[in-house]
Amino acid sequence: MNLAILFGGISYEHEISIVSAITLKKSLSKENPLFIFLDSKNNFYLISPENMVAVNFSNGDYKKEKKLELTNSGFQHKTFFGKEMFNNLKVVNLIHGGQGEDGTIISLLEFYKIKAISPNREASVLSFNKGLTKIFAESVGVKTLSYQIFNINGKRKLNIIEFPIIVKPLSLGSSIGVSVVTKLSDLDYAFDTAFEFEDNLIVEPFIKDVKEFNVAGAFTDKLVISNIEEPQKGEILDFDTKYMDFSRGQTLETIDISKDLEKQLFENFEKIYMPKFIGSLIRCDFFLINDEVYLNEINSIPGSLANYLFTDFPNLLNSIEIPQPKTASVSYKYIDKIQRAKG
Amino acid sequence: MNLAILFGGISYEHEISIVSAITLKKSLSKENPLFIFLDSKNNFYLISPENMVAVNFSNGDYKKEKKLELTNSGFQHKTFFGKEMFNNLKVVNLIHGGQGEDGTIISLLEFYKIKAISPNREASVLSFNKGLTKIFAESVGVKTLSYQIFNINGKRKLNIIEFPIIVKPLSLGSSIGVSVVTKLSDLDYAFDTAFEFEDNLIVEPFIKDVKEFNVAGAFTDKLVISNIEEPQKGEILDFDTKYMDFSRGQTLETIDISKDLEKQLFENFEKIYMPKFIGSLIRCDFFLINDEVYLNEINSIPGSLANYLFTDFPNLLNSIEIPQPKTASVSYKYIDKIQRAKG
Repeated sequence: MNLAILFGGISYEHEISIVSAITLKKSLSKENPLFIFLDSKNNFYLISPENMVAVNFSNGDYKKEKKLELTNSGFQHKTFFGKEMFNNLKVVNLIHGGQGEDGTIISLLEFYKIKAISPNREASVLSFNKGLTKIFAESVGVKTLSYQIFNINGKRKLNIIEFPIIVKPLSLGSSIGVSVVTKLSDLDYAFDTAFEFEDNLIVEPFIKDVKEFNVAGAFTDKLVISNIEEPQKGEILDFDTKYMDFSRGQTLETIDISKDLEKQLFENFEKIYMPKFIGSLIRCDFFLINDEVYLNEINSIPGSLANYLFTDFPNLLNSIEIPQPKTASVSYKYIDKIQRAKG
Repeated sequence: MNLAILFGGISYEHEISIVSAITLKKSLSKENPLFIFLDSKNNFYLISPENMVAVNFSNGDYKKEKKLELTNSGFQHKTFFGKEMFNNLKVVNLIHGGQGEDGTIISLLEFYKIKAISPNREASVLSFNKGLTKIFAESVGVKTLSYQIFNINGKRKLNIIEFPIIVKPLSLGSSIGVSVVTKLSDLDYAFDTAFEFEDNLIVEPFIKDVKEFNVAGAFTDKLVISNIEEPQKGEILDFDTKYMDFSRGQTLETIDISKDLEKQLFENFEKIYMPKFIGSLIRCDFFLINDEVYLNEINSIPGSLANYLFTDFPNLLNSIEIPQPKTASVSYKYIDKIQRAKG
């Protein structure tokens, strides 16, 4: 099995994915993975480790590297003389947002029978759309804040009457298009901002200075849960701050919280993760309100895979169990039967 | 726009998809669509209209036809002398079950920027998994029967105590692996049967002689709803019967039901379809119990697209609106900013 980091992709988080891959290169120095870049024109390139620097992508120099094509069971590089195959891969889907987190990339890899550490298609769909995340969380017994979904063509009539509220595009990450609204007269501007990115948005109450806790985890032969992080931040993590956040590599120490809260956080993480997210490494961001844990959001492909929350990240990544889907068999027994009946 | 029927695919319904495509060829004789076959080895072939006969697939003769490859914005056929491109396509996703209905195929087409009449990825995931269908239906105010989901590794402890019950693999169609169980001693056999096909199954009460009504529809510039069908059948539609069902081409007349029931069926269909299923033609199968409508299941790619339920099927198919996804822009402004800061 050759580990391969797949990054880039068409999304607002294209750059963030590059930074995330560069960070993982440092955390995985002994694993010596392949780096496969998906550019904005849907082309794949195999990037040499020494060229894993941000400027190589922004100036287009990556195009001088080996161009890859998807094929059954791997990627191939075609030359005048023949094909070079890259198979027996374990691909880490590190395409944040868009294609990576909405289920497109994992569908592509699955179609071509390439093993991947990634949320599967169902888990992607449930975590990508914040409305479905709420419905899913409730169905497994995890609390979430009240909410309301708006479409670009619909009426802008709020059921939530208390301000402040937070307005988010329904399925983007990294705070893109997000606004906190403190009074009704600012609502239209916040809606217009969110609708620039997406046709649907979600409104939730905004709780100032709410306690937040992030927990990551993955299933190996058991569920491995990370250290708990209490993110330090201003009102909203802006894009610049988040960008820096994706380049974190240093392991974070466990924070000092009560055993009871730790238990609550772990239990809620497990309810979300098991069994839907087996095969992936995710981070759940929780709120603590009146001593009760609420799910804020699921990061199905967290920045640099939240490596800094784990004590032995390389070992964890190598041990993640990738479930093998049962493959349907294709037969022609009915057509054959009819042919025989025809004589 | 060139209409192209995509059929075959890896699923237990591979053969059914072939029959379905042959049926659509008859319904769309004036449209003269392309026929693209996906075989069990993940290869695409362009099938000449005269070879759209069942035996051509079962005996492997289709391999003599033009082999196609997916590429940006279409399919290509490579020869020694160059490439033949098939683009400007409107692909009809007619791959029943498996890859077609679970969201894989539409993800592939979306990745390569090929327009398609198909449930989108989110709608596919919600209709493919019968448990998620229940949760989704409830969230839009459509009733469903009570249910319980079992995993192959879990305990077989029933919460539903009244027999008969119906046991179904969680995400297969066409009655594959389905059993009606009338007494507890038959339960294990029914579970084993379903688990042969899939690791999860769903149990629901089985209501003998329940009234059933099928309604299909699609969004053009408005929601077009089909004639209503009351399927005539035995206890369960077995695979043979369903197989024949997929080859239906003759338009069905509207049945005689009360205006109130018709209204209820249409309203429930609309709740399911709008807006999640825009871009697709689906059939919803409803039960009528104590004068109330319950969703039985969503057929997100019904056999031969339920052409027999519509009075002008070719015109409907040509008018289905395919929404264009908002594409994220890829920029390098943050990387550029950092480079500038470095000097």
